[in-house]
Amino acid sequence: MKEQLLYAASDVSADMLYFSGVLIPDPFLAFSYQGRRIGVLSMLEINRARKSSALDGILSLEALRQEAKEVFGSSEVMAIVRLLKKRYAIEAFEVGYDFPAGLYAAVSQVMPAPAIAMGGLFKERAIKTPEALVAIKQANVAAAAGIHAAKECLRAARIAVDGTLELSGRTVTSEFVRSRIAQACLEHGAVAQNTIVACGDAACDPHERGSGPLYAHKFIIIDVFPRMESSGYYGDMSRTVIKGSPSSEQERLYQTVYSAQKMAIAALRAGAIPQKLQESVNDYFIENQYFTQKEAAPEGFIHSLGHGLGLALHESPSVSLSNQQPMLENNVVTIEPGLYYPGLGAVRIEDVLCVTAQEALLLSECPYDAVL
Amino acid sequence: MKEQLLYAASDVSADMLYFSGVLIPDPFLAFSYQGRRIGVLSMLEINRARKSSALDGILSLEALRQEAKEVFGSSEVMAIVRLLKKRYAIEAFEVGYDFPAGLYAAVSQVMPAPAIAMGGLFKERAIKTPEALVAIKQANVAAAAGIHAAKECLRAARIAVDGTLELSGRTVTSEFVRSRIAQACLEHGAVAQNTIVACGDAACDPHERGSGPLYAHKFIIIDVFPRMESSGYYGDMSRTVIKGSPSSEQERLYQTVYSAQKMAIAALRAGAIPQKLQESVNDYFIENQYFTQKEAAPEGFIHSLGHGLGLALHESPSVSLSNQQPMLENNVVTIEPGLYYPGLGAVRIEDVLCVTAQEALLLSECPYDAVL
Repeated sequence: MKEQLLYAASDVSADMLYFSGVLIPDPFLAFSYQGRRIGVLSMLEINRARKSSALDGILSLEALRQEAKEVFGSSEVMAIVRLLKKRYAIEAFEVGYDFPAGLYAAVSQVMPAPAIAMGGLFKERAIKTPEALVAIKQANVAAAAGIHAAKECLRAARIAVDGTLELSGRTVTSEFVRSRIAQACLEHGAVAQNTIVACGDAACDPHERGSGPLYAHKFIIIDVFPRMESSGYYGDMSRTVIKGSPSSEQERLYQTVYSAQKMAIAALRAGAIPQKLQESVNDYFIENQYFTQKEAAPEGFIHSLGHGLGLALHESPSVSLSNQQPMLENNVVTIEPGLYYPGLGAVRIEDVLCVTAQEALLLSECPYDAVL
Repeated sequence: MKEQLLYAASDVSADMLYFSGVLIPDPFLAFSYQGRRIGVLSMLEINRARKSSALDGILSLEALRQEAKEVFGSSEVMAIVRLLKKRYAIEAFEVGYDFPAGLYAAVSQVMPAPAIAMGGLFKERAIKTPEALVAIKQANVAAAAGIHAAKECLRAARIAVDGTLELSGRTVTSEFVRSRIAQACLEHGAVAQNTIVACGDAACDPHERGSGPLYAHKFIIIDVFPRMESSGYYGDMSRTVIKGSPSSEQERLYQTVYSAQKMAIAALRAGAIPQKLQESVNDYFIENQYFTQKEAAPEGFIHSLGHGLGLALHESPSVSLSNQQPMLENNVVTIEPGLYYPGLGAVRIEDVLCVTAQEALLLSECPYDAVL
C-alpha cells in the first residue's frame, strides 16, 4: 500500500494546503499513514499547526533531524523521509507531479523511487466540499466588489477630447483601476494580484494585464481572481465594459459572447462533456461569422472555455477540447468564452459555476451592464 | 556541457522569473542554450513575452506540440523536452531542486536523468544586480509605509478600560491593522500577504499572524513582507511596538534586541561568516541573561538571525548557525534578531541590508520608535 508524501510550502502549494489545512511559508514534509494526515513541523510552526490545521498528527522536525543524524548520519530531508519509511513500515510512497525533483532523486537512491500520482495526488480536490463552495463564493463576492469598484470609477470619469478618461483631474489608467480593484478585494478579505484591466488591442492578448491610459469607446476587459486570505480559495470573474458609446459592431461582438456564455452555462451539468461544451461555443461563433485562427497572429476564440477553480487558480477539470471526461457533481469551473480581434477589440465574460445533476449554480454574482 | 531546463510558472517560481523576466501564471518550459535563454510559450503568452521579457529566443508551444506529435507520437511536455534535446543537440540537462518530479521521471525514461543543481540552479541570484537592489529598496519603501500606517492607527487609538484599543468606536484588531498595512503597500505598488500583527503571547510564535483584539501595554510585532507587483522582488521588515506604557522589563527586552540588531549589522560585511554573526548574537543575549531553550516549549532566540531576500522571500544566503560560507558583496539579507518569552511577550526587529566590502547598507528605512 502506497502512502502519500508531500514536501512544499502550503502558502504556494494547493495540494499541501488541502492536505495540511494550515498556511506555512516554507516547505515542510507531510505524509499519509493509514488514512491519517501527518505533518513534520519546525518549532517555528508547530504550535500554530497544533492550534489550527487539518493534520491528525504532528511530528517535530528538530527531533526527527536529530534521530536521522543518529540513525543515518544525515539530518537532511531525504534522511528524514528514510526514517519515516522505516518507523512507520511504509512500503512505498506516492508523490504529486510537482514534488521537488531534488528530493525525489535523493530518496530514490535509498528506497524504491516514489510513484508519481498521475492526474494529481488528490483527485478528490475537484469535488468541492460545502466548505469549499462557501469559500469560493466568498472569494467571488470579493471579485464582484472589485469589478463594481472599477465600474464606479469608469462611470465617474469624464471623456477628454483625446479620448482618454479623466477623474478628479487625473488620467484614468489600467494601474489606477487595478489598484481600486485590489483595495475593494482587500476590504472583503481577499488579495487580488495580476488583475487584468486591458483596453482596446491590449486586451486581445488574453493575459495582458494592461498599462497606461484607458480610452473611451473601446472595450475594456476586467478580469479579477482574488484569493481569500483566510482559506486560500480563489474567485475568478471577468466583465467587459465600454465607457462611452459602442458601435453596432462592438454591440454585436458583446452580445455574441454574452449569448455564448449563457448557452454554455445552460448546458453545464453533471455528465456534460467539456469537449462538447467548447465545440458548441466554437460552432456558435462560426455561425455568427466570428472565425478563429491560431496561427501567426491569433484571433477569434483562442483559449479554453473554462477551468477548474479552488485552492489553485487553474486546476482540474479543464473545460476544453482536450477534456472528454464527463463533468461531475460539485465540480467548480469557470465558463469564460471570449472573442479577440485586434482593431475591433476583445470581449470576455467569465463566471464561476458549481456543477449539479440538473444544472450549474452560479457562485459569482455581478451585473452584466457593459456600457458605462 | 549541461544546459539548464526549467518548467514552472514565473508567477510563483523565483528561478523562472529570474530566467524569463516575465510574469506568466501557468507552468511553461524554458532552457538555456549556449548562454542564451529560450522560452516555450503558448499563443496566450507569446506576444506579451516578445514585448517584455529577458528571453533571447521564444518558441511556439503549439508548433512544438505539433512537431513532437509527428516525431514521437506524443505532444506531452516530456516529448517536447525530448524534441528540444534532439533539435539543439543538447548533451544533458540540469534542473533545479524544485523541478517537478513528474516531468523529471518522465524525461528520465527517454534520456539520461537530468542533473540536479545542488545549491540552486542560479547561484548568481544571491549576488544582486543594481536593478535588483533598487527593486528591493522599493519593496521596503512599501513595507515601511505599511508599518507607518499600522503605527498611525495604534497612535490614534485610545485605550479602553479592558485594555483593548478603540478607534472611531471600533475595537482595533490584528485583522484591521493588517488590512491598513496591505492598503498602504498597495499604494506603493506592492502586495502584502500574510502580514504579521501579533500581540502578547501570540507573538511568541514567530510565524503566528495574529487575530482578534490588540491590547495596550503588550508588545505587538509587525512583520511586513510585500512583493512589488512590477518586478516580483520582496521587501521584509519587522518592528515591535507597545501602545501605552512599557514596564522596565519590557524596556530592557526591547533594548537588548535593538542593540543586538545594531551589533549584528555593524559586523555584517563581505567575508563575515553567518555562523559567527549568529553566535555573537546568541552570546550577547546570554550575557544579558536572556536564555534560549528549544525543547518542549521553546523560548528565547529561537530562529535564524536572517535570510537572503530577493525574488523569493527566503533565499540564499541564510544567516544562521548552519551557514559557514563567507558573505559576498551584493548579498542581500535580513538581520532580524528576536526574543520570545511567553508571559513577557516578544520583540523582533528586522531590516534588510546589502553587503559591501566595508559595511552593510540599509535597504530599508523606518523609525524604531516603539512606544506609541
